[in-house]
Amino acid sequence: MDIGIIGGSGYTGGELLRLLAQHPEANVVAVTSRRLKGQDVSKTHRHLRKIYDLKFEDPSPQDIASRTDIVFTAVPHGTAMQVVPGLIDAGVKVIDLSADYRLKTDIFESTYNLKHTDPREAVYGIPELHPEVAGQSFIANPGCYPTGASLAAAPLADAGIIERVVFDSKSGISGAGADPSQVSHYPNMAENIQAYKLTNHRHRAEIVQELSRLDKGIESVSFTPHVIPSVRGILTTAHVFIEKQTDRDEVGRIYNDFYRDKPFIRMIDSIPMPGNVRGSNFCDIGFEVDKFSNRIVVISAIDNLVKGASGQAIQNMNLMFGLDEITGLWTPGVAP
Amino acid sequence: MDIGIIGGSGYTGGELLRLLAQHPEANVVAVTSRRLKGQDVSKTHRHLRKIYDLKFEDPSPQDIASRTDIVFTAVPHGTAMQVVPGLIDAGVKVIDLSADYRLKTDIFESTYNLKHTDPREAVYGIPELHPEVAGQSFIANPGCYPTGASLAAAPLADAGIIERVVFDSKSGISGAGADPSQVSHYPNMAENIQAYKLTNHRHRAEIVQELSRLDKGIESVSFTPHVIPSVRGILTTAHVFIEKQTDRDEVGRIYNDFYRDKPFIRMIDSIPMPGNVRGSNFCDIGFEVDKFSNRIVVISAIDNLVKGASGQAIQNMNLMFGLDEITGLWTPGVAP
Amino acid sequence: MDIGIIGGSGYTGGELLRLLAQHPEANVVAVTSRRLKGQDVSKTHRHLRKIYDLKFEDPSPQDIASRTDIVFTAVPHGTAMQVVPGLIDAGVKVIDLSADYRLKTDIFESTYNLKHTDPREAVYGIPELHPEVAGQSFIANPGCYPTGASLAAAPLADAGIIERVVFDSKSGISGAGADPSQVSHYPNMAENIQAYKLTNHRHRAEIVQELSRLDKGIESVSFTPHVIPSVRGILTTAHVFIEKQTDRDEVGRIYNDFYRDKPFIRMIDSIPMPGNVRGSNFCDIGFEVDKFSNRIVVISAIDNLVKGASGQAIQNMNLMFGLDEITGLWTPGVAP
Amino acid sequence: MDIGIIGGSGYTGGELLRLLAQHPEANVVAVTSRRLKGQDVSKTHRHLRKIYDLKFEDPSPQDIASRTDIVFTAVPHGTAMQVVPGLIDAGVKVIDLSADYRLKTDIFESTYNLKHTDPREAVYGIPELHPEVAGQSFIANPGCYPTGASLAAAPLADAGIIERVVFDSKSGISGAGADPSQVSHYPNMAENIQAYKLTNHRHRAEIVQELSRLDKGIESVSFTPHVIPSVRGILTTAHVFIEKQTDRDEVGRIYNDFYRDKPFIRMIDSIPMPGNVRGSNFCDIGFEVDKFSNRIVVISAIDNLVKGASGQAIQNMNLMFGLDEITGLWTPGVAP
Repeated sequence: MDIGIIGGSGYTGGELLRLLAQHPEANVVAVTSRRLKGQDVSKTHRHLRKIYDLKFEDPSPQDIASRTDIVFTAVPHGTAMQVVPGLIDAGVKVIDLSADYRLKTDIFESTYNLKHTDPREAVYGIPELHPEVAGQSFIANPGCYPTGASLAAAPLADAGIIERVVFDSKSGISGAGADPSQVSHYPNMAENIQAYKLTNHRHRAEIVQELSRLDKGIESVSFTPHVIPSVRGILTTAHVFIEKQTDRDEVGRIYNDFYRDKPFIRMIDSIPMPGNVRGSNFCDIGFEVDKFSNRIVVISAIDNLVKGASGQAIQNMNLMFGLDEITGLWTPGVAP
Repeated sequence: MDIGIIGGSGYTGGELLRLLAQHPEANVVAVTSRRLKGQDVSKTHRHLRKIYDLKFEDPSPQDIASRTDIVFTAVPHGTAMQVVPGLIDAGVKVIDLSADYRLKTDIFESTYNLKHTDPREAVYGIPELHPEVAGQSFIANPGCYPTGASLAAAPLADAGIIERVVFDSKSGISGAGADPSQVSHYPNMAENIQAYKLTNHRHRAEIVQELSRLDKGIESVSFTPHVIPSVRGILTTAHVFIEKQTDRDEVGRIYNDFYRDKPFIRMIDSIPMPGNVRGSNFCDIGFEVDKFSNRIVVISAIDNLVKGASGQAIQNMNLMFGLDEITGLWTPGVAP
Repeated sequence: MDIGIIGGSGYTGGELLRLLAQHPEANVVAVTSRRLKGQDVSKTHRHLRKIYDLKFEDPSPQDIASRTDIVFTAVPHGTAMQVVPGLIDAGVKVIDLSADYRLKTDIFESTYNLKHTDPREAVYGIPELHPEVAGQSFIANPGCYPTGASLAAAPLADAGIIERVVFDSKSGISGAGADPSQVSHYPNMAENIQAYKLTNHRHRAEIVQELSRLDKGIESVSFTPHVIPSVRGILTTAHVFIEKQTDRDEVGRIYNDFYRDKPFIRMIDSIPMPGNVRGSNFCDIGFEVDKFSNRIVVISAIDNLVKGASGQAIQNMNLMFGLDEITGLWTPGVAP
Repeated sequence: MDIGIIGGSGYTGGELLRLLAQHPEANVVAVTSRRLKGQDVSKTHRHLRKIYDLKFEDPSPQDIASRTDIVFTAVPHGTAMQVVPGLIDAGVKVIDLSADYRLKTDIFESTYNLKHTDPREAVYGIPELHPEVAGQSFIANPGCYPTGASLAAAPLADAGIIERVVFDSKSGISGAGADPSQVSHYPNMAENIQAYKLTNHRHRAEIVQELSRLDKGIESVSFTPHVIPSVRGILTTAHVFIEKQTDRDEVGRIYNDFYRDKPFIRMIDSIPMPGNVRGSNFCDIGFEVDKFSNRIVVISAIDNLVKGASGQAIQNMNLMFGLDEITGLWTPGVAP
């Protein structure tokens, strides 16, 4: 497969390059950056020196489409909707890593406070929840928080037993991108934890969309994100209130049935930690049933840049091309 | 005031010494450690070199009581109940930093799975919630998590509007003590976050006790702790479900009224962070009202070793002796 | 003492405020910031909420001098030389925390590649090496690296036995200031170490000036700085090549004699660590004699924002006003 | 290749497993641990869940040799010399990751203060410096610090221009192993830096052996290690004093000539950082010539668990079996 990456200077672009370097069928032929046009890709992504000998380009959508089988768009929201139509019209497969095609158009517009210039259906690319990814030619790749949250709660939503759910998520700071800011300034982030958007983070809309698809009767879905002193990883603590008491065995059965034959989901007996999935496409899930109230605490751990972004995009690519979904992604996390 | 510290080799003992070094009325005359008897205190607490010229001792309760006006017991739970009676009988004031006297005896025994050998009433030493601390001669100093959680939710409990509350707490690892373990092993803790005791951490009983004292009608109180890659600090995210919609102004009034004239509580407009209270006795509190459900998200930030342990103990000491509660404690956090 | 701080929005300004809040003779009456004029100081320095009720001002030098006994200038190099003359002319005592007055004028101009508009003598304010600080009215406060390096090697320079010395310094990132940059971006700094200015960092000139004052015969003085994933602290590893073999006892005598009666120097038997001086004005020093070559390895540890900047400035202030140098500074480090 | 790992429960064992999972010719058939015999390997190495379905065994050397083509011994020094002879006698290829066979026997015995029970020649496995690795059947895999230090200075030693060299090395704490200790206790390591063995770390002997092999005339080789708050990575700052002035071009030529056709060495124009090699087998090298003295500062960056241990072992394995040395190792670092 000949591959193009539009917007290759950020973390998700770098991570696509890192992962595709290990993919047996992948051949990256073009990486774009308007700002860095002409510069070595490995000057920005220094860990990729000697691995790639590419320069950033700034081609037209038609040009890049003519040289590739699939294009990943790793550009900011609002920008993707300007780029994607030209690519699709030129007949190339597209996976968009921005937020532009993840939500129903009206929800997108109210959530992002932005008029959508290219309203169009896309399959939402969590393959464990959307087997229809296979064979598609256009995928909206999910947000990092929604991936961790939806995978944690989907089996219970599917079982129809959720009354209310609170997702309290803790993310590494790489999710905020490669540009320095007060939040990511080392003295502000080290030995600290920063909660933000306590009630109305935009990713909440994706979680609501996914869970309500499985169960329309959930009373409320809440989401509160935090950044912790880590580069990678999201730990999602899902506080799930259910309608009636349950027990460990029943919940275990629900998860094991739901995720049977899903290679990247690892149901574990202990409590998942981001440290065990770092750099990998796995999503580790564990849970405990509360004896004090009708609550199940479900914990999921992913690498926000892999299963939460670029790894999942490659998993989608594999399925779009009829490959085994684990192709090029069956690598363990880097631990310690 | 001549002061004794029983069990001075751990983090709470070291923190008492650090803070008392800056207290104008305090004179530490004895620090005990069975294991380190005869060794310089500053060999264990190297930051205290030149500040203290004391050696660890192992005196009898009677002996230490005869030389002091007040004794802090900073020993493990189960040990305090063996030491405290002798001190009280010898007529010295006592502040116990262990868990032994925080809970009603039957709750203690079921929570800690331990027979109590000295059932006895003690005032629970969160001075903002227990003004009766003033003039007492025996105080049970609260746990770190319960301090952050109770201070976050007490005004809403007092207002009688809580339906359910989930405390999702994130702590620095110093709360786990000075002894190395797999959890505190740097390669396991760095770039990671570890949830634990998802539903049944012992500190939950203290939180329930405090909140139900203010409002018997709360449907459920849940508590899930995590350790993050930080030494100090607890951020508590309180997801408070309330019975009916409210707004920012009303909630602001509730907090400002409740904490009027409480010097160590800082109500802030933005979101609190442990980084702003590190090393200090302040508890910063902020909140946001959810427009999607009947939820208020309250965030509190404390230093677990100060307001969550030794600083609060000194605040209690001040009040027991009729001093202004801020005496020796009115120091800003160390930031950045 | 009524105190003014010119340039109070950065880390050294914030640290002056933090430390002066605990100084029994200090009364901060004015803090300036052109950019933040009119804003609450505690909006920028959030750890200082409730401690200070000041707003940033932008007064003239004459105005601030008329209201104060001493002014700290915490502005960038090149700016101080524009502010200091007016203050001195107005008769107020001044401690300049910038680089502008630390070096002989010609050395300053070649090192900073900048014409000096106010060539003027100043005492270099490391009080342990410059007792003449006492009674002065103008002090050039040293750089953070030169403080750690000079204190590590001065006794050996004074003994006249240094042949060559290599200072390999490791600093927390707060030394780079409060403004976000690629270097201080958390994903770039965490789990990493960044060497920079391998041979020609500007602070080298200060170290050379101090050591050559004590011993003109040193063959070479080298300095290589690094930033490590820490907020505060500088560990200086001084690789000191000496002219002939020596032993631990002799070196110990040299240091103990040289630093007799210097309260903030702690000679220790083990190896110093920044973790033991964090937030304090101490400089811990230890050493080991190499049996394989004529080398002594001396390690010093300071807090770059305290002994390396604002704490040392206050120590200088104390001596300028005839106070005991430890006044308001005799606080232990915050550990762990 | 069928592969055995003796001593598979530690970090180097886990890292062998991680890397071999991506090696197209490798098939791990046995992993041993006396203590964990019978337990799932992925219970200890949780990041390897679903990747390996092996249990720890405790077989005899003969047994494991009969089932494998090559055995890695990842056991403590002193233990390897008890295991290796049996393996070699059984005819299997061996790569020993301990210190037992790295040094000439007399140097080993004085350095480790231990009688060697199996004095035997081994090729020292830094392939860039020992092309004779190819085709061997027994390799002593180097220490982590010596790999970073020797690769940094070897070209200059080979050029015969080194007068004196000081290696000031900064390592992540994973080099100290998987067992918790005071040094690795998070509150002691975070926001800190710990120098240790200032003059006589055992790894110094390996560095001396390698450099003196290339140039007998070096006056002194000094080595001072530090641990920094990172899990992985070693940055080596080599302060190389040379006999006469040189310049950037000449030094550049020396390095480029020496490392021509060495795939894992990346000569870079900027300053290397561990963050760019994390998880990979690369060694990044940069340098600067000092204009103030006859000093070159060379910086090398490696991942201590990969190029400093398990990755280099696999590189050696490839060469022993006639494979391209990059087989299974041509993966970029994980950044950020």
